[in-house]
Amino acid sequence: METTKNIAASAAAVFQQPLRPTFSLIVIALLWLNLTTILDWFASITDEFPKLQQHCPNVQPVSRQEFEERQRSLAQQLYALNASAYIAEPGANALYYGNISKSSWSLSERPLLLVITPTVIDSVVDARLIILTPKFETTRAKSLVIPSSHSVQYVEWAEDADPYQQLATHLLQKSTEAIYVDESIRHFIVDGLQAALPDASVTSAPSQIKLLRERKSAAELALLKCANEATLLAIRRVHRDLYLGIQESQARAMMSAALSGFGLKDGHCLVLFGINAALPHGAGTDRELGLMDFALFDCTGSLHGYYSDVTRTVAMSVSDIPPDHIQIWYNVQAAQAIAQRTARAGVVAQQVDKAARSFLESVGKGSYFTHRLGHGIGLEVHEQPYLRGGSEVILKSGHTFSDEPGVYIEGKLGVRLEDCFYINESGEAVFFTEGIGGQSRSPWSP
Amino acid sequence: METTKNIAASAAAVFQQPLRPTFSLIVIALLWLNLTTILDWFASITDEFPKLQQHCPNVQPVSRQEFEERQRSLAQQLYALNASAYIAEPGANALYYGNISKSSWSLSERPLLLVITPTVIDSVVDARLIILTPKFETTRAKSLVIPSSHSVQYVEWAEDADPYQQLATHLLQKSTEAIYVDESIRHFIVDGLQAALPDASVTSAPSQIKLLRERKSAAELALLKCANEATLLAIRRVHRDLYLGIQESQARAMMSAALSGFGLKDGHCLVLFGINAALPHGAGTDRELGLMDFALFDCTGSLHGYYSDVTRTVAMSVSDIPPDHIQIWYNVQAAQAIAQRTARAGVVAQQVDKAARSFLESVGKGSYFTHRLGHGIGLEVHEQPYLRGGSEVILKSGHTFSDEPGVYIEGKLGVRLEDCFYINESGEAVFFTEGIGGQSRSPWSP
Repeated sequence: METTKNIAASAAAVFQQPLRPTFSLIVIALLWLNLTTILDWFASITDEFPKLQQHCPNVQPVSRQEFEERQRSLAQQLYALNASAYIAEPGANALYYGNISKSSWSLSERPLLLVITPTVIDSVVDARLIILTPKFETTRAKSLVIPSSHSVQYVEWAEDADPYQQLATHLLQKSTEAIYVDESIRHFIVDGLQAALPDASVTSAPSQIKLLRERKSAAELALLKCANEATLLAIRRVHRDLYLGIQESQARAMMSAALSGFGLKDGHCLVLFGINAALPHGAGTDRELGLMDFALFDCTGSLHGYYSDVTRTVAMSVSDIPPDHIQIWYNVQAAQAIAQRTARAGVVAQQVDKAARSFLESVGKGSYFTHRLGHGIGLEVHEQPYLRGGSEVILKSGHTFSDEPGVYIEGKLGVRLEDCFYINESGEAVFFTEGIGGQSRSPWSP
Repeated sequence: METTKNIAASAAAVFQQPLRPTFSLIVIALLWLNLTTILDWFASITDEFPKLQQHCPNVQPVSRQEFEERQRSLAQQLYALNASAYIAEPGANALYYGNISKSSWSLSERPLLLVITPTVIDSVVDARLIILTPKFETTRAKSLVIPSSHSVQYVEWAEDADPYQQLATHLLQKSTEAIYVDESIRHFIVDGLQAALPDASVTSAPSQIKLLRERKSAAELALLKCANEATLLAIRRVHRDLYLGIQESQARAMMSAALSGFGLKDGHCLVLFGINAALPHGAGTDRELGLMDFALFDCTGSLHGYYSDVTRTVAMSVSDIPPDHIQIWYNVQAAQAIAQRTARAGVVAQQVDKAARSFLESVGKGSYFTHRLGHGIGLEVHEQPYLRGGSEVILKSGHTFSDEPGVYIEGKLGVRLEDCFYINESGEAVFFTEGIGGQSRSPWSP
């Protein structure tokens, strides 16, 4: 509303020149239609929102206490590994440990770093947080909301100073200790840290540290469940209003409205009709939905920072899908179910990928399943670990993955079905969408 | 137009439910006002566009031939350095050498890399281009338009394979050679390359290679000149229509429209009024412009990938700016002019920063000039090298920099003036905005 008010006030203020009536009327008519769409969409979606609320009535952002527990676990792991610090730029890891996302602090050539070091107080290892900030940005850096049980230390670097040298004096007890960085950090930061700490080893954090973020807490699982349910409900809502001749861009706009309507942020969908879906990450050609086309929706959205990822390949009741395409759809559905039944605590990631792949091979479709089975999901849509051939990762409770087999035949069709699952305390794989029906039952029942 | 058409068609199709007349009418009224703004703005800006065209009638994107020359220069430098490859992810360097931007290929956990290697053909060193691509994305990777005098080689990595191992077999003649990476590459890619090539040294590209992109060609300078002129014209256009009480968000919306109207993409402005400008990168509070406030506009936009950066601190004719604020404005103006007169080929970067800083110190404002004087500009808004204390970089013809001194007094005001300049063939520093008046003459004449 704030934005609308501002625009209106701005418009009223600038409105000093004669109108061009015809052009204006045409554009008003177009905007009116658009407006009607938005109003109707939001109204219809809002009607369904209470339904969603019933599935996740108590969903909350991650608590301050949980942030502090994460920091403590990291500090204890660093201490055990004889490492003196963990360092991340704004991004998923800095968000996980310090509530600093890329949207709260844009990356620039000037490093702002979250540094977590272990500190021993009364024989207990706890975390100490440092923010390395450009000096002239200190006021803005201090406005970041960083949960911490101890006060955060701000180390400022002036424009004519070496930021890494400034940080170095606050870091090491012994110069030969290990410094671990977020592996997604930009390489020049590693260069700078290594130059400032020539005797330390500055390397990507090892698996023991990565595992801390990989395994989700109850609060995180609740957020992921709600985000994934909302996404599937949004797809189902759009599916109901699909029609022959609709363009990919139109359906994408409907999905955007639906994802917002269901309360998600950063909503984004791949919408691919017919042969366009044969490229798994194709951009589409704004194809019109044909009588014989499947429509593929691969959608994501976020809830308090946690992402969903759901794919449905659908048809309408009036569609005339070739029988061999329908057969492929059910092959993919079966592969998805087999993968979910294979996944459980103790299983190696590659076995889950293999289960889906072997089934598709057994029905002669293996060569068309061109990508891995799935990826971790949480603060990033795609995150470690992955369900892929060659992965030795062992599934544990709290692990979260997409299960998304597909068959892609260029010039013919693409079918993908995707639900995300988590490994529960009993070691079983449970779809986040289970509470609203789980897997797609047919092309007509997403 | 395509988008509008789609939205309208989509709206018409979905339009099947009863209207809510009152709410609709209110929103229509708001949209109509907004529409009027947009129409009027674009109309008024379009009137001025021919003026801009006169300044840069022949501006063209960088030619295919120039891309090939860049690749050849890089290959020759690699050969001279006994290095076997230069490797970049989609981003500014991949855009410079291979026309691959982050918007043409989004970064994901799956590496897509541009690899340039030197190859000797008839005693002449030329460039060979490799694209390392996820196998299932090969079709999409091949749709990237990559200028090259030889055919580009696509090395595919399957989902169950190590991408870096796949690349390694195509790289080295001698295993101990150097591999240079774009220093902004994500660190896990360096990890992967180093593991696949244990005897090679995988490091950030040295200054000889960075210098290739730092020094701009005539075609690049023409693009930068046009982009910077358009940005300044847009600021002047908005300045004319400022009024007391306008909110920062409203003026920002006007700037967005103006930058688009002048033909720039990715338009973005910091708009800060009064005390809000005291934080150089402040986000503002949507303050209303007061009688005693300066308005600071720090704007950028891109033309065929090349960015502008122009800052103006302005007042209106009705403004009642305190005399000491006006004095500060002229201090900043003088500092900017002194820096420009100091800059020339052969001068060390820190001397240029020092010239502006010393002047502000001499008038008692030195402690309020809290950031460096400037940055390189080109395919990135901020790029190497920088005009800052401590920098030993020697200015050369083709170098491009912002010249942006400022005075920031928290709780009081912020004044910054910024024009970008280049070092011409005679070694002089010339403002890109020179053709339309250059430096701001007064707070009332931006």
